[in-house]
Amino acid sequence: MTPPRTPKIPYGGDYNPEQWPEEVWDEDHRLFTRAGIDTLTVGVFSWSLTQPAEDTYDFTALDRVLDRAAAEGRRVCLATGTAALPPWLAKRHPEVNRTDFEGRRHRYGQRHNFCPGSPAYRRAATALAGRLAERYAGHPAVLAWHINNEYGGVCYCDLCADAFRAWLRERHGTLDALNDAWWTTFWSHRYTDWDQIEPPSALTEHWRGPDHTAFQGITLDYHRFTTDALLGCFLAEKEAIRAHDPDTPVTTNFMGMFRPLDYHRWAPHLDFASWDSYPPLDAPPTVAALAHDLMRGLKDGAPFWLMEQTPSTTACRDVNPLRRPGELRLATYQAIAHGADAALYFQMRASRGACEKYHGAVIGHAGRDDTRVFREVAEVGEELETLGGATLGARTPARTALLFDWDSWWALEMSDGPSRLVRYQEVAHTYYRAARQAGADVDVVPVTADLTPYDVVLAPVLHMVKGDLAARLEAVTARGGTVLATFLSGRVDEHDRAFLTDVPGPLAPLMGIRIDEWDARQAEIVNPVHLGDLTADARLVFEIVRPRGAEPVGTYGADFYAGTPAVTRHRVGEGEAWYVATALDQPGVDHVVRRILARHDLVGPYAGHTAVETATRVAPDGTRLLFLLNHAPEPARLTAHAPAVDLLTGEHTERDEPFTLDPLGVAVLRLQ
Amino acid sequence: MTPPRTPKIPYGGDYNPEQWPEEVWDEDHRLFTRAGIDTLTVGVFSWSLTQPAEDTYDFTALDRVLDRAAAEGRRVCLATGTAALPPWLAKRHPEVNRTDFEGRRHRYGQRHNFCPGSPAYRRAATALAGRLAERYAGHPAVLAWHINNEYGGVCYCDLCADAFRAWLRERHGTLDALNDAWWTTFWSHRYTDWDQIEPPSALTEHWRGPDHTAFQGITLDYHRFTTDALLGCFLAEKEAIRAHDPDTPVTTNFMGMFRPLDYHRWAPHLDFASWDSYPPLDAPPTVAALAHDLMRGLKDGAPFWLMEQTPSTTACRDVNPLRRPGELRLATYQAIAHGADAALYFQMRASRGACEKYHGAVIGHAGRDDTRVFREVAEVGEELETLGGATLGARTPARTALLFDWDSWWALEMSDGPSRLVRYQEVAHTYYRAARQAGADVDVVPVTADLTPYDVVLAPVLHMVKGDLAARLEAVTARGGTVLATFLSGRVDEHDRAFLTDVPGPLAPLMGIRIDEWDARQAEIVNPVHLGDLTADARLVFEIVRPRGAEPVGTYGADFYAGTPAVTRHRVGEGEAWYVATALDQPGVDHVVRRILARHDLVGPYAGHTAVETATRVAPDGTRLLFLLNHAPEPARLTAHAPAVDLLTGEHTERDEPFTLDPLGVAVLRLQ
Amino acid sequence: MTPPRTPKIPYGGDYNPEQWPEEVWDEDHRLFTRAGIDTLTVGVFSWSLTQPAEDTYDFTALDRVLDRAAAEGRRVCLATGTAALPPWLAKRHPEVNRTDFEGRRHRYGQRHNFCPGSPAYRRAATALAGRLAERYAGHPAVLAWHINNEYGGVCYCDLCADAFRAWLRERHGTLDALNDAWWTTFWSHRYTDWDQIEPPSALTEHWRGPDHTAFQGITLDYHRFTTDALLGCFLAEKEAIRAHDPDTPVTTNFMGMFRPLDYHRWAPHLDFASWDSYPPLDAPPTVAALAHDLMRGLKDGAPFWLMEQTPSTTACRDVNPLRRPGELRLATYQAIAHGADAALYFQMRASRGACEKYHGAVIGHAGRDDTRVFREVAEVGEELETLGGATLGARTPARTALLFDWDSWWALEMSDGPSRLVRYQEVAHTYYRAARQAGADVDVVPVTADLTPYDVVLAPVLHMVKGDLAARLEAVTARGGTVLATFLSGRVDEHDRAFLTDVPGPLAPLMGIRIDEWDARQAEIVNPVHLGDLTADARLVFEIVRPRGAEPVGTYGADFYAGTPAVTRHRVGEGEAWYVATALDQPGVDHVVRRILARHDLVGPYAGHTAVETATRVAPDGTRLLFLLNHAPEPARLTAHAPAVDLLTGEHTERDEPFTLDPLGVAVLRLQ
Repeated sequence: MTPPRTPKIPYGGDYNPEQWPEEVWDEDHRLFTRAGIDTLTVGVFSWSLTQPAEDTYDFTALDRVLDRAAAEGRRVCLATGTAALPPWLAKRHPEVNRTDFEGRRHRYGQRHNFCPGSPAYRRAATALAGRLAERYAGHPAVLAWHINNEYGGVCYCDLCADAFRAWLRERHGTLDALNDAWWTTFWSHRYTDWDQIEPPSALTEHWRGPDHTAFQGITLDYHRFTTDALLGCFLAEKEAIRAHDPDTPVTTNFMGMFRPLDYHRWAPHLDFASWDSYPPLDAPPTVAALAHDLMRGLKDGAPFWLMEQTPSTTACRDVNPLRRPGELRLATYQAIAHGADAALYFQMRASRGACEKYHGAVIGHAGRDDTRVFREVAEVGEELETLGGATLGARTPARTALLFDWDSWWALEMSDGPSRLVRYQEVAHTYYRAARQAGADVDVVPVTADLTPYDVVLAPVLHMVKGDLAARLEAVTARGGTVLATFLSGRVDEHDRAFLTDVPGPLAPLMGIRIDEWDARQAEIVNPVHLGDLTADARLVFEIVRPRGAEPVGTYGADFYAGTPAVTRHRVGEGEAWYVATALDQPGVDHVVRRILARHDLVGPYAGHTAVETATRVAPDGTRLLFLLNHAPEPARLTAHAPAVDLLTGEHTERDEPFTLDPLGVAVLRLQ
Repeated sequence: MTPPRTPKIPYGGDYNPEQWPEEVWDEDHRLFTRAGIDTLTVGVFSWSLTQPAEDTYDFTALDRVLDRAAAEGRRVCLATGTAALPPWLAKRHPEVNRTDFEGRRHRYGQRHNFCPGSPAYRRAATALAGRLAERYAGHPAVLAWHINNEYGGVCYCDLCADAFRAWLRERHGTLDALNDAWWTTFWSHRYTDWDQIEPPSALTEHWRGPDHTAFQGITLDYHRFTTDALLGCFLAEKEAIRAHDPDTPVTTNFMGMFRPLDYHRWAPHLDFASWDSYPPLDAPPTVAALAHDLMRGLKDGAPFWLMEQTPSTTACRDVNPLRRPGELRLATYQAIAHGADAALYFQMRASRGACEKYHGAVIGHAGRDDTRVFREVAEVGEELETLGGATLGARTPARTALLFDWDSWWALEMSDGPSRLVRYQEVAHTYYRAARQAGADVDVVPVTADLTPYDVVLAPVLHMVKGDLAARLEAVTARGGTVLATFLSGRVDEHDRAFLTDVPGPLAPLMGIRIDEWDARQAEIVNPVHLGDLTADARLVFEIVRPRGAEPVGTYGADFYAGTPAVTRHRVGEGEAWYVATALDQPGVDHVVRRILARHDLVGPYAGHTAVETATRVAPDGTRLLFLLNHAPEPARLTAHAPAVDLLTGEHTERDEPFTLDPLGVAVLRLQ
Repeated sequence: MTPPRTPKIPYGGDYNPEQWPEEVWDEDHRLFTRAGIDTLTVGVFSWSLTQPAEDTYDFTALDRVLDRAAAEGRRVCLATGTAALPPWLAKRHPEVNRTDFEGRRHRYGQRHNFCPGSPAYRRAATALAGRLAERYAGHPAVLAWHINNEYGGVCYCDLCADAFRAWLRERHGTLDALNDAWWTTFWSHRYTDWDQIEPPSALTEHWRGPDHTAFQGITLDYHRFTTDALLGCFLAEKEAIRAHDPDTPVTTNFMGMFRPLDYHRWAPHLDFASWDSYPPLDAPPTVAALAHDLMRGLKDGAPFWLMEQTPSTTACRDVNPLRRPGELRLATYQAIAHGADAALYFQMRASRGACEKYHGAVIGHAGRDDTRVFREVAEVGEELETLGGATLGARTPARTALLFDWDSWWALEMSDGPSRLVRYQEVAHTYYRAARQAGADVDVVPVTADLTPYDVVLAPVLHMVKGDLAARLEAVTARGGTVLATFLSGRVDEHDRAFLTDVPGPLAPLMGIRIDEWDARQAEIVNPVHLGDLTADARLVFEIVRPRGAEPVGTYGADFYAGTPAVTRHRVGEGEAWYVATALDQPGVDHVVRRILARHDLVGPYAGHTAVETATRVAPDGTRLLFLLNHAPEPARLTAHAPAVDLLTGEHTERDEPFTLDPLGVAVLRLQ
């Protein structure tokens, strides 16, 4: 399946009219019309209204909301609303409340507060989803189903412990296999009965929080189990919907690079991907871009929905800066450039109370349409009407892949030694950023992805190497392609057991190196790495590389390993395998990645303009669209690399013609 | 009622002879006489001695202490001693131990350890207070009753949950009203039964501690409930005392700016206010002064008692600096200058063991009278005898008010967005300090106070605006007065619901402005604000002001809102309403506040001497006393603004005569 | 008893072949032979294998490991393996799991996870130790018994509460005595029944963690009780072993300066001391040296075993640096120089899984013998064979003692006031370092040690003074010796009650001073202290000293106590008593300590070479060995102070002959 078919990019967002008297609804729709808003996400947190008691459902409010939307010509993304328990359910079935990492059974409060292993929750949530589908399948407003909301959180209750044991039996088959996988002879942990296994928590294997575990194997499996347990909740709701509505596409809103859940395990079960983008506002634009590309990678490159972003500010952070003029528009087009086929906000009208009352909204507390934010929202709305369906269904023709692997993320960050300071996302982002700023389109894909479309495969901090991955990477080089791996790659198998071979394990033959030892130092210690004319800063981890076929490309400049290789290249037939043995700074990574991309002619025409992001999408009819996004507060003066028409302005540009992107400006060029 | 009538300022402090053999008592009284000590606080922590078992009271020790005090001509502030449970009570009735924010039922330990909702505690404490009153009412030594000690702390047990529900029923009447007040339709929190409501804790609505709540409404109500629950304990004890002693004044010792309890709810129930002053020793002197003025404001400006201060050092802090020579005397006169009619210490003799053994004391472990600290204490004692009753009952003739509001404090600091970095006390202190250093006497009053006596009303960060406050502030300007409000004021109603009007809500018409959006930035980001010749630093929050009648007084110097107003003045008839839209630094606030004070001729004669604090008190007979306090380690050379006699030295000064205040020096001038 | 008799220094370490298939064992022994490894620590974590169920023991694997070792000519340090519970025991007897400081009963996980007060644990552990002894007493491979592993951790369960009450009855006799010792009249804590006493935890007397207690007395006693409870576990196992094996020496591996357990209470019960050395790799070498000397001091100067060190890196730290070339050898000889008669590693072969898989090992995951680390291990192995038995049984002829006292450590760091920033180890290390870098051999001894062998006794931050210590220190000066004490010494008695005399309490007459008051300041505040030509920095605590016979040696340079003494010397007959009233920096302490050592002619011949550590050992036959250790990465050029032969190279040096120590180089000189 794909996202819902629409004539243009759906525009709108989370809408909670049930919190307001109906006279406010009139004003809402008047303002929606003014702002070009055609799509509303409804019902995300209305369980307590829709089902006020165990045996009572009340669809009055939802009926009115949907009917009104239909009457106004707007479409609805209908939520099942099962992410926040109603009070009566928590009181009546206390086991639906989670038991936390500290072993504390919670009581009613907050949201995302349900135990995924609780039959009472599963039963109630599934019933509600079924009732909604029964009632609203075929309703003219309904465009898509939105199950639950931002799935996340972990439970450690006895029900989950039992479910975990069953899951383990399924996964490992026998206790012998499990003991071997977790290496339990260490520290006398050999289990002789499944019932002896406890969820890994602050009361069992952990100290100093969730990243410090005595046994990586059990904690890794609990992450996988939690992913599957919440996925089970999703699937049960989806099945209940499908019983009544076989066609309307179903999604749930993800959160980008969200460590707790392995979205790759979920991806096959979504009809289309969608996600909520709240990048830290001081992050470089490639942080949001990486998340967009990860989301696009979930469904093999199919477009996704931007389900939420803020029109102005967040509220949940310690400090919540304001999106400056133009930033909202830029972020919206960035999403579209990376594959978004919808642009939705949280939220349409600011809540009057509780913790999100200061979260930005299209309509503020005073209900005005003459604010700067409303004006910018309306301007984008108008532009999206102009754009029409030009971008819908378009795909990204990337020849560069970045492998993203939740298992490696988990394994790396829960590792004891060599360094707790290495963060998976940061290293991955450094490589992604280098490729993107060099102008390459990048697919961010799971390690199981088909790698044949790619000339370049970047595999930073791939701590865990599973299955036939090494062979498939070798196939990339056999085709003449280039593979890059880094420090702390190829260390453990799927159970987090060290490979009993030279580091980097299964990648060692491809990389043509051998590593016996590695140093780690505090963040302020820099080892200069010489890379041709460039001296880059390296930090955190310094692997000592003994080439076994590879040639040095960069060398350490300090410590007892000064002069030994920090970056190597192994020529394998027509292909190349690069290894970066330390955490290089961005200029160092840029240097390495650009050399690799250049080899495959993948450096883009505007690579000299660091602040100008480019992204390509190819429409189903073959039209090639080039998005140009100027992230700088200054104008970018460019020279056209090809004749094109800007779909937003209608302006034509000829090859080699100079043109200017405004500060924070955007162009959507149809290449000719 | 007022503080007890005494011929001079009571001088002394906490005295625990029950911890020592009686031969030490003789030495105590010898030293008390040497130091001019006439008042002893007795029995604060002696419950386990006075009532060694549920059915056994033993007054032997207290009898001897009080009789001895009377024989020595000293008076006693008699504590009910109910702040620290005896072990037997905690063992026999485990429910008297608190359940903490993490949901953990405590066991016996520490102090301030009782559950206010526990009938067993309430019964035992009240019975003890009654027994004490029965026995000591009319005892010649007894000067005042001191109930409990430094009330504080919160309990989350099931008994408190029940009491909270009853309190909510009383407050909200119906669940519909409660659901509306807390805006529970948000996040599916609509309650359908009172029993579904849980105290807001780490197990329910909170994350990252007590300031992070999903629902501000419930947490705010729990703060109010806790205030009332502890007040209920106080009132029960007071009633038990009054049954036997109808006349002796009753107090409990407060802790100044103590966030957990809204002392304004307690104030009507005290016969006189008293408090324990332990300012951080590196704080500017206006921090202690603000607390003194807040305490004086509890009883409409009536004098209060300084119930505790340290003669030398604290012990409970990570680092406990020593009061330098002269600092004790200066702090004592500062208290008197702000309305203290007693000057008491914790503690008379240093404890031999446990956590306060290194807390400073008049008499140290070696029992010497030839230490510096003892000598300074004795010198102050001698001076207070000289001063006699001159200051007793005197009141402060302030024409400037600063509104201090626990509800706003709570609401501001538990707010999600825009910035967790804004701290209520800090902002309030900045404005208070500006006024005090300009020489204005300031009343620190609740938002319900009568504002008619004031020319200037400062209302910093008044996040919550309740009742008719806006109208009463408008009345101030209607009389020609000046009102100042700041950023993050006028945001929410009494339930923490946003006003559905332009910011700053009910204050907007008075301020003549409208605010649609606001920025927040990390603490290190400065926006320069131009205020005439001064450029002040602004930080944290930057509201974007659209004047609606107001004129700009200061403007932002940076970011996309550069040139827009950061400080505005709205002329309303003869009055003025000022708005400061950002967190200005002290020089910026000084500039604004001095302009306002100057308008009303409230800048004092010594305002040019920043280190010299002035404070006025008017005795019951109309005598006007001017306190001059030199907080600098250098002498202050001043010129007299009026003829006066220094009550401490007897020296006369004529108008325009030069005179000098010693380093840390004090003068108490009777103006003529 | 002494360490096991061996012909040379035992060399090897922790070996867990049970985690590997037997073909790996062959490879292990091949590599052991290559590396000169003759001693293996076996069975530390194999309880779950050896006893797979409550009624089942299985010695198959151990039999094979021991027999194989014997066949290969290697000796075994045989562990009882009771430090990590098997899962079945935790499941079947949940009370063997600990209840933590927060009051949470743990479930199965980690290691060091047993409740010492649980009869089920005690029974099972003792039975296992007995079975092992029954089976392996007399086995040719068995060289020593290794009970449990790195004892530590605290339990707060109800079983421990009962045991604590019994322990208290034993210690205090009556509740009156206990109430007096803990000074419970303070804060109404007077106990009237033993059952009212609760272990001091986060739920009772503590706040902000284990160092913040309302009652130091109870917390101090809980530390002592915990020490004794774990010692009880050790003794029960030892007794079970002795029933079958009367002769083989028994030890347990300590952790150097490990605050939770008072090793001095354990020392009499060990046949020989052993410990695991994991100094922070950026610590000065005197940190490890101090711990070595503390361990040597446990058995009156008898040699100890270095039971564990890493050949390369740790894994448990946030950042785990690599031991650089030569550092392992240097650290090994440092241990020997300070009294180690064995040199063992954790671990022989790197674990394949779990939290120690990246901990350094002699044999890495790839099983290679051509790594740098293996090569260095083998080189040391070869050298140790050369060295043979030359150092075995040798003792250190120190004339300087440093008093090390767990009670003072505990009391100081749980004190409320004057400063939480003073850390016992840091201050002790400063004095130790000064003496060591001046070339003095130092015995680190308990306060009960015989002080007659010493010319100089250093007693830094001796917060608690017990028994006849003051008199024994006075005897040192009476003999013409020198005693040094510092700030925060002599404050409390064995129950943490302040002395009712002038500070420093029982040390005051000896020191010839009186202290009435003390200042404390944040770490960044420096008071310069003038010490002859040197101006040293003083911080944290500044006691104000009034000499009573002592003469000033150094004076404060700032604050109101400028010009008063910061360092004093009291001449007492031929002896001297020095007092340092503040936390001097290292140069300041060096100055003071060198003056004292010089007085006794204890400054060493190489004291001018800061990086060159010297240590003397005298072999049983009277041979005097001088270890020279160059901790610098540069060569040290020295002039021989005496004729000598280097046992490692066989080279002779004559007096006054120049010689060079390589970077990180070592010489073991037999003096002639």
